[in-house]
Amino acid sequence: MTSMTLDDCRALDAQDPLHSLREQFLLPEGVIYLDGNSLGVLPKAAPARIAAAVTKQWGDGLIRSWNSAGWFDLPQRLGDKVARLIGAAPGEVVCTDSTSINLYKVLFAALSAMQASGRRVVVSERSNFPTDLYIAQSLCRERGFTLRLVDAPDELPAALTAEVAVLMLTHVNYRTGAMHDMAALTKAAHDAGALAVWDLAHSAGAVPVALNACDADFAIGCGYKYLNGGPGAPAFVWAHTRHAGQFEQPLSGWWGHAAPFEFTPEYRPAPGVARYLCGTQPILSLTALECGLDTVLAADAFGGMAALRTKSLALTDAFIALVEQRCAGRFTLVTPRAHAQRGSQVCLSLADKSSGAYAIVQALIARGVIGDFRAGDAQMPDILRFGFTPLYLGFVDVWNAVEHLVQVLEGGEWQRAEFNRRSSVT
Amino acid sequence: MTSMTLDDCRALDAQDPLHSLREQFLLPEGVIYLDGNSLGVLPKAAPARIAAAVTKQWGDGLIRSWNSAGWFDLPQRLGDKVARLIGAAPGEVVCTDSTSINLYKVLFAALSAMQASGRRVVVSERSNFPTDLYIAQSLCRERGFTLRLVDAPDELPAALTAEVAVLMLTHVNYRTGAMHDMAALTKAAHDAGALAVWDLAHSAGAVPVALNACDADFAIGCGYKYLNGGPGAPAFVWAHTRHAGQFEQPLSGWWGHAAPFEFTPEYRPAPGVARYLCGTQPILSLTALECGLDTVLAADAFGGMAALRTKSLALTDAFIALVEQRCAGRFTLVTPRAHAQRGSQVCLSLADKSSGAYAIVQALIARGVIGDFRAGDAQMPDILRFGFTPLYLGFVDVWNAVEHLVQVLEGGEWQRAEFNRRSSVT
Repeated sequence: MTSMTLDDCRALDAQDPLHSLREQFLLPEGVIYLDGNSLGVLPKAAPARIAAAVTKQWGDGLIRSWNSAGWFDLPQRLGDKVARLIGAAPGEVVCTDSTSINLYKVLFAALSAMQASGRRVVVSERSNFPTDLYIAQSLCRERGFTLRLVDAPDELPAALTAEVAVLMLTHVNYRTGAMHDMAALTKAAHDAGALAVWDLAHSAGAVPVALNACDADFAIGCGYKYLNGGPGAPAFVWAHTRHAGQFEQPLSGWWGHAAPFEFTPEYRPAPGVARYLCGTQPILSLTALECGLDTVLAADAFGGMAALRTKSLALTDAFIALVEQRCAGRFTLVTPRAHAQRGSQVCLSLADKSSGAYAIVQALIARGVIGDFRAGDAQMPDILRFGFTPLYLGFVDVWNAVEHLVQVLEGGEWQRAEFNRRSSVT
Repeated sequence: MTSMTLDDCRALDAQDPLHSLREQFLLPEGVIYLDGNSLGVLPKAAPARIAAAVTKQWGDGLIRSWNSAGWFDLPQRLGDKVARLIGAAPGEVVCTDSTSINLYKVLFAALSAMQASGRRVVVSERSNFPTDLYIAQSLCRERGFTLRLVDAPDELPAALTAEVAVLMLTHVNYRTGAMHDMAALTKAAHDAGALAVWDLAHSAGAVPVALNACDADFAIGCGYKYLNGGPGAPAFVWAHTRHAGQFEQPLSGWWGHAAPFEFTPEYRPAPGVARYLCGTQPILSLTALECGLDTVLAADAFGGMAALRTKSLALTDAFIALVEQRCAGRFTLVTPRAHAQRGSQVCLSLADKSSGAYAIVQALIARGVIGDFRAGDAQMPDILRFGFTPLYLGFVDVWNAVEHLVQVLEGGEWQRAEFNRRSSVT
C-alpha cells in the first residue's frame, strides 16, 4: 500500500461533498477536535437561538411562552427530528431527561413486558457503559431479575438462554468504538424469546441506525455527543409502537399524563411514547439541542446519514492508516478494522503496554488536538480515544492530528508530562 | 378599617427596604407579573452568563470545560446556594433533574428506610400537586404500599396511624396558597413513627423554610418558580444527614457514583446527598438557575428570607384588602387569611359561583396583568391565582393590578371574553 500524504488529504477534502457542513459550527481557532463523541461542537446558530429563548421567550413571553413559543411541543418536535436519524417514525421519539433516566424507564417497561414469561435474566456486556450497568443492577435488584454480563461480544448468542428476558446493549462501545450488528442481535434476542433494548449514545448522528427495520424493542440515546446538543443536553427515548402504549414506566410525572392540564389526582398515561415524559423539562437546554439536531439533519441535502457514514469511515480509515504509517509499532489498534464493526471513533493502546497513554493525550491536548484518555484495568489496557465527527472534520485535520502525535512521540513531550504526572501523585 | 389608597401604596414602596432588588430583573414593559409562582422573571445577569456558558464554555472550552468551567461542581455549588434558603447546611442539597424525578428518588429512599417497620401506608392530601400523587401512586404500587389521601389538612393528624410509613406533603399548596406548619406536622409524623417528605416547590425562595430545625427527613423543590431559574430549570433534593448516606435511590447513574471516573462496572453510591445525582445534567439550564438563585440570595443584604417574607405578607395583605375594598362581594378568598397559613400567593373564586374566572384571567392577561386560572371540579371552585414575588413586585403594582381587575369587572370585558370562549367550544 502506498503511503498517504498531506496532498492526498488535501485532495480528499477538496472532493468531500460534505465539506460545507463544517460552516455550521464555531470551531475554536487552533483546535483539532477529536472528542465529538464526548461533547459535540457548538453550532453557529445556537448562540442567537438560545439568546432569543432567554430574552424573548423567557424574558418577554414569560409564562405565556409555554404556548406561544411552543415549549410544550419541544420534546415531541425534537423527538421527530431524532427519529429521522435512527430509523424511527414521527411520533415515536421524545427528547427528555438524561440517558440514564431514560434507560431506567425503558428497562422497567421491558421487564414489565416480560414479567409474565417467568424469565428473570437481563444480559449485557461487562464493557457496557458503566451507568447502563448501574441502572440495570438497580432495576434487577428491585424487580427480582439477575444481570448476566458477558466478557466478549461473541459470547452473546450463547448467553441468550431460555431464562433471558432482555438483551440490553450499547450499539457502539464507548471505549473501544466497536459496533454491534443491531439487526442480527435483535433477531437473536427475539429468536431466544427475549426483548432487545439499545443504547444509541455513540450511534445517533454517528452511524446509520434502523430501529424499526431491525425490529428493536426499546432504545435510548444521548443528545450532547454526535447530536451536538450542548453540555448535558436532554436525551431521547424510543419505544416500538407495539410496546409504547402497552407498558407504564414508573417515573409517572405530569408531562406523561394523558391530560396533563386536567390536574386530576389519578395518573393516566398518555398514549404512545409521550408516557415516557415525566417532569418539566429544561427549555434552554432543549433549545440548544434543537440547534444541534439541525446540524445533523442539514446533511440530508448531501445524502444524510449514509453520506456521513461514508465520510466517517474514510476519516477513521485515514487516521488508522496514518498512525500505522507514521507511528509504526508504537500503538495497537483497539477499534475493529472491519467497517461493519466500527463506530465513528478510533482507540489506540500503547503497543509496549507502558503507561504513557495519559501523558500522550495530555500533550496532544496542550497542542490543541483534543481526544481523551480512558484508564484500563487488569483486563483492558489504557487507551487513547479519538472521535471523528464527519460534520466538522476533514482529512487535513486527520493529517495534522497524526503529525502532532508524531511530534509528541518524537519530541519526548509525553515523557515529560508523564514524569510531571507521576511526581504530582507521589 | 380605613381604605387603602394609591398614595398609601406609593408610600409603602418608598419605605420598602427591598425595593432596589427589582433592579436585578428584566421585567417586560407594561406587564404586572403575578405568576412568579409558575415561572420566575428573567434575571438581568442571566443573558450574559448564559451567553458566556454557550460561547466560551461550550464553544471554546468544549470538553475541557467539565473541569475548567466547573461543570462537575454545578449540582453541589448550586445546591449549597439553595441550602441557605431552606434551612439546610452546605453539602446537604444538590440541584438536578426535575421535581417529579427527585420526589421518586427520596420517596423510594423513605420507603426503603421504613421497609423493616412493616408499615405500608403513605399519607398525603388529595389536593397535593397531581404529579406528586402520580409518583407516589407508582412507587406505592411497585413497593407494596398504599397511598392514603385526606381531603382537608385538619384530617392529617388523625390519618397518622400506626400503619403509616411516610407523610408526604407539599408545604404550600399550588392551588390555594395554603401553607402547612412544617414543624408541627413533621413532629406529628415522627411521634406517629413515620417519616416526613416535603415538596418545597412553592416555598423555596418564597417563604422561610427550616428543614433541619424542623427535623424533616427528605425534601425536594423546584428551580423555576420563586427561584427564578428559567423555564424548566433543574430541581433540587435534600436528605437529612441521618438518611443521606444510608439509603440508595434506584436512579443509580454515573454522577451519583462514589468514584464516577473510575468507570467500574459495579455501582457504589457516593457518600451523602451526591448519591441523588444520576445522569449528565443540562449545563445551560443549570447556569440559568444559578443566576436565579443569586437574585434571591441578594436579599441577604437586606434581611434575607425573613425580610422577603415580611414584604410578601404585606403585598398579599394589600391585595386582599384592595380586592375586598374595591370588588366587594364579587370574590371569595380561597387563600387562608392567617399569615401562618399563607404562602406567597392569593387565590380567589367567584362569590356567585358563576363560570367567569377563566375569562377574567384572560382579560387581565390581555391588559398585561399576568396571573393564572385553575379549573375547579365538583369539590373545588374555579380559581384566579395571583403570585406575589417580593423581589420584583411593589405595592403600586398591587394597586394597579386591582385597578385593572375593577375595570375588567366593570367594563364587561370578561363577559365578552367568556362569550367568546363559550362560542369557540360549542
